[in-house]
Amino acid sequence: MNGHANGEVPSGMASSRGTPRVADGGGLAVDKAADFANYFCTYAFLYHQKEMLVDRVRMDAYFSSIFRNLKHFVGKTVLDVGTGSGILAIWAAQAGAKKVYAVEATAMARHARTLIAGNKLDHIVEVIEGSVEDITIPEKVDVIISEWMGYFLVRESMFDSVIYARDKWLKPDGIMYPSHARMWIAPVRTSILEQKQQEYEHAMADWNSFLQDTNLHYKVDMSCLSKPYKEEQQKYFLQTALWNSLYPNQIIGTPVIIKEFDCLTTTVEEVAAIRSSFKMHFYESQRKCSGFAGWFDVQFKGSPSNPADEEVELTTAPSAEETTHWGQQVFLLSPSVNLSAGDVLSCSLDITRSRQNHRLMDVKFVHQVERASGEVSPPITSPYAIE
Amino acid sequence: MNGHANGEVPSGMASSRGTPRVADGGGLAVDKAADFANYFCTYAFLYHQKEMLVDRVRMDAYFSSIFRNLKHFVGKTVLDVGTGSGILAIWAAQAGAKKVYAVEATAMARHARTLIAGNKLDHIVEVIEGSVEDITIPEKVDVIISEWMGYFLVRESMFDSVIYARDKWLKPDGIMYPSHARMWIAPVRTSILEQKQQEYEHAMADWNSFLQDTNLHYKVDMSCLSKPYKEEQQKYFLQTALWNSLYPNQIIGTPVIIKEFDCLTTTVEEVAAIRSSFKMHFYESQRKCSGFAGWFDVQFKGSPSNPADEEVELTTAPSAEETTHWGQQVFLLSPSVNLSAGDVLSCSLDITRSRQNHRLMDVKFVHQVERASGEVSPPITSPYAIE
Repeated sequence: MNGHANGEVPSGMASSRGTPRVADGGGLAVDKAADFANYFCTYAFLYHQKEMLVDRVRMDAYFSSIFRNLKHFVGKTVLDVGTGSGILAIWAAQAGAKKVYAVEATAMARHARTLIAGNKLDHIVEVIEGSVEDITIPEKVDVIISEWMGYFLVRESMFDSVIYARDKWLKPDGIMYPSHARMWIAPVRTSILEQKQQEYEHAMADWNSFLQDTNLHYKVDMSCLSKPYKEEQQKYFLQTALWNSLYPNQIIGTPVIIKEFDCLTTTVEEVAAIRSSFKMHFYESQRKCSGFAGWFDVQFKGSPSNPADEEVELTTAPSAEETTHWGQQVFLLSPSVNLSAGDVLSCSLDITRSRQNHRLMDVKFVHQVERASGEVSPPITSPYAIE
Repeated sequence: MNGHANGEVPSGMASSRGTPRVADGGGLAVDKAADFANYFCTYAFLYHQKEMLVDRVRMDAYFSSIFRNLKHFVGKTVLDVGTGSGILAIWAAQAGAKKVYAVEATAMARHARTLIAGNKLDHIVEVIEGSVEDITIPEKVDVIISEWMGYFLVRESMFDSVIYARDKWLKPDGIMYPSHARMWIAPVRTSILEQKQQEYEHAMADWNSFLQDTNLHYKVDMSCLSKPYKEEQQKYFLQTALWNSLYPNQIIGTPVIIKEFDCLTTTVEEVAAIRSSFKMHFYESQRKCSGFAGWFDVQFKGSPSNPADEEVELTTAPSAEETTHWGQQVFLLSPSVNLSAGDVLSCSLDITRSRQNHRLMDVKFVHQVERASGEVSPPITSPYAIE
């Protein structure tokens, strides 16, 4: 045996069959211990915190949103959900907050405490180690700040915890940082498609020679597993969303907003099952669509009754100048879609949570080509996993 | 946030603080759901099964041990603990077993069922999906076969399940396949030491420029986290056992057996905490020891009352001809040990289970240099994690 996860095996595919289930993740049973094993553990490494702390797009957006809107912080109470290293809590305190509650589920809480004391803010910032669902603070707060966004916004399902905190601890006239979030989709061209198709073909050729060897040397016929092996490899190479940092010129059509969230009012149900129908329009002279990309942006606008002095936006869209650690999620279309001038793609997208792990997502993409002639192709369904 | 585990973050570091604990792993509390998330899930991929099925050293040893000792199988009942794809159960049936119970905890059980039916052995082999600790079979068996060995033998702690099955389901005169196991240690030379030392230095230089940037751009002094960051990076680069397939000429001294197990009698306690004291003798003209390597071998000897017709051995020692997927585990000594002619290393090694994950190990290595002159250096303690 050798249970060491290697780079070739999809991660995060926890199974928790037959185990105690103690919480709820948008309608799916969640085991807390498995959730720690799968998810929270990553955030207990300073190395990982540093990766987020060197993301200048991320850092500048939060920094500007706070220090250009001091009125939201001076003399106020603040809750930081998932404080990690404590950076947002520190900035809130530096911006004039009266009191900051910094909640962190992992052992990173202890490093946050060190950092806060090292920056002489421990009289303002109180670090609380625990899940925000489990902890108690002595008052409702004026501001909830959190960096909860995962790949394609919703991966990790951490928005749930922010919503929970908002409903329990935010004053009726409180403000969310960020205040809004949007999910974007655009068609792309990428040579990753050909690369992954080749890797998949190679994996299947390798399987076929493995079948022969096993028959010859060990008297066992493995061919009856070819179908599930093929499905496993297809899922791995062609039906799993890929992290990529795209160049803007790889976007071959008009980006579409598929979902908008007002962080003051969004419910967990809205986040847990996202459905969108939309048209993809292509830029001129594009002849082939090899997939589509998903990304997000968030805005810091304050609230209707207490708007920001200066609105700030954090975008993870493809950019020639600035990239983020989030990059974009790329979903390949195999086979690719051949386009003629004037073609439009009529699409629907469903994003739901994986049954095995509520922090990962299943995606169902359906497209039909509407030709300029008026002809419409039959619908094609493509399933994906966001892992 | 971005909770995607990357290649730079040690894996398997699950925390299960504050969660229900339902079983026992050699004195440490174990949460079954976290255990599935961390460990069993890997084995549910055919890709991973295939990696083990193409390990010719592994396959040939089990194949030979079965088919050269038919008397142990003809007309007998067999229990396969952790059958995976079902390969050992199939061979046991092909060798003449009357009945084979093939137990598998993961969904791989369903593929095993397919493979067994595809090879027309479903009238002999019964696949049971569940942990061997939880399932029931209608009789005691003549043979327990299992491929339970992890890196450096004990990683994964799967031997526990085999011992459990033996005590519950093996007849008094039953046989274990394999029957014996041994753990080996030898001093090595490897350029990985210099590589990892450089990577560590680079990581710390990068941290120092990060400190300056964060001070300059974001008004936060991160220097109070330098000590824990340094510890985290040391642990990652220099104090974590490394998988390697060593060449025999990298072994610079006489290999030592640090532990032997008789699979018929070994207890979980013996496996869960291993302590060994030994001397390392170096081959002539070696001037530098950059670490030590650990590997294992297992033997198929039958039992005292029913010995094998032909004994078979499976070794994972460094070899010029044949490598295994287990390779060797390399433990670096930083700084390396400078040797003079006639020097001997007086060593002790403690291998215990990680508190965070009972399937991973903590290693404590203590060495003293005994000079030919009779002078003895002070003891130096090196901690390691097997992840």
